[in-house]
Amino acid sequence: MKEKTIITISREYGSGGRRIGEKLALALGIPYYDKAIIDMAAQKSGFDPEFIASQEQKVTGSLLFTLATTGYYTGESLHDQIFRAECHAILEMAVQGSCVMVGRCADYILKGKFDCFNVFIHADEEFCRARAITEYGVKPAEAAKVIEKINRQRARHYQYYSQQVWGAAKNYHMTLDSGRFGIDGSVEILKSMAELF
Amino acid sequence: MKEKTIITISREYGSGGRRIGEKLALALGIPYYDKAIIDMAAQKSGFDPEFIASQEQKVTGSLLFTLATTGYYTGESLHDQIFRAECHAILEMAVQGSCVMVGRCADYILKGKFDCFNVFIHADEEFCRARAITEYGVKPAEAAKVIEKINRQRARHYQYYSQQVWGAAKNYHMTLDSGRFGIDGSVEILKSMAELF
Repeated sequence: MKEKTIITISREYGSGGRRIGEKLALALGIPYYDKAIIDMAAQKSGFDPEFIASQEQKVTGSLLFTLATTGYYTGESLHDQIFRAECHAILEMAVQGSCVMVGRCADYILKGKFDCFNVFIHADEEFCRARAITEYGVKPAEAAKVIEKINRQRARHYQYYSQQVWGAAKNYHMTLDSGRFGIDGSVEILKSMAELF
Repeated sequence: MKEKTIITISREYGSGGRRIGEKLALALGIPYYDKAIIDMAAQKSGFDPEFIASQEQKVTGSLLFTLATTGYYTGESLHDQIFRAECHAILEMAVQGSCVMVGRCADYILKGKFDCFNVFIHADEEFCRARAITEYGVKPAEAAKVIEKINRQRARHYQYYSQQVWGAAKNYHMTLDSGRFGIDGSVEILKSMAELF
């Protein structure tokens, strides 16, 4: 493995991408950043971490929404402010050393600045449904709708800020069907790849 | 490796997907089908192999073009006839046993019928340009345009027949950036994956 290995993982909801990221970081002995990105972005922006978590996947550029929520308008929408704060957090974490980062357009934010290993994880509907129910407590009758809604939000958010298509093979060095290889199988594959990268 | 392993490789022009497919088949000791698909489709349809090769990526459903070329119209466009002949060839080859197939929507054609390992290979512009020039004799000044044109044709052809997006991670079990891992590196990765699959 290189001295500094930064792995970014983008993932479909329910595909286990987050779990794969955590396990991969553990297997490689490097930090895993997910919620920590929110915490650092909160420090940088002054927003509450929970507020950031509830808003970070959205892209409403509305002046009224920004005014109503923050009480002021600086010319930058609320969601752009959150995205900017997350960009700073992600860049700062990348400077620090090897890590695994999940979500938040990290592949795009670090492009051309750091030599990252960019990964996208997806899975079949059945696999994602089962995980949404057991891991996130989504009601079985609502699972398909929740998965579709969250993936749509992620795709729109990614496209809005990166002008790239979310889940297009082109943006990643490797994409994996975790439904086929399993969570632990995917971790094994990515660990070998990271060591080769 | 399973008793029967069918690997389909879709690829961007110049990414080395075809070369990777050939080498992978050799490494696994299984047949590699590329031009053979054209030859079998020619036998099945009565068209000349060279004619199929020149037309197979196109999707013009034009009655006039079909009439002008074949002299008759059966209600099925020329390109649909070629696609149908290739479908038959691909299905017949899949019945025969383990193999590597390159291009021609094989992932879509075999979906739900055979348990295939579906792969997409892409690479950065520089890598594809260099290979287009050295491997296919494309003039340096024209390389970017040729790559863009052929990839556009492939995307349109795939989308027309599969109603799926060409190069979307979702359609493949694994996608690889051959520009990053190299031709031989990609073969090594896919060989391990095929054995795991």
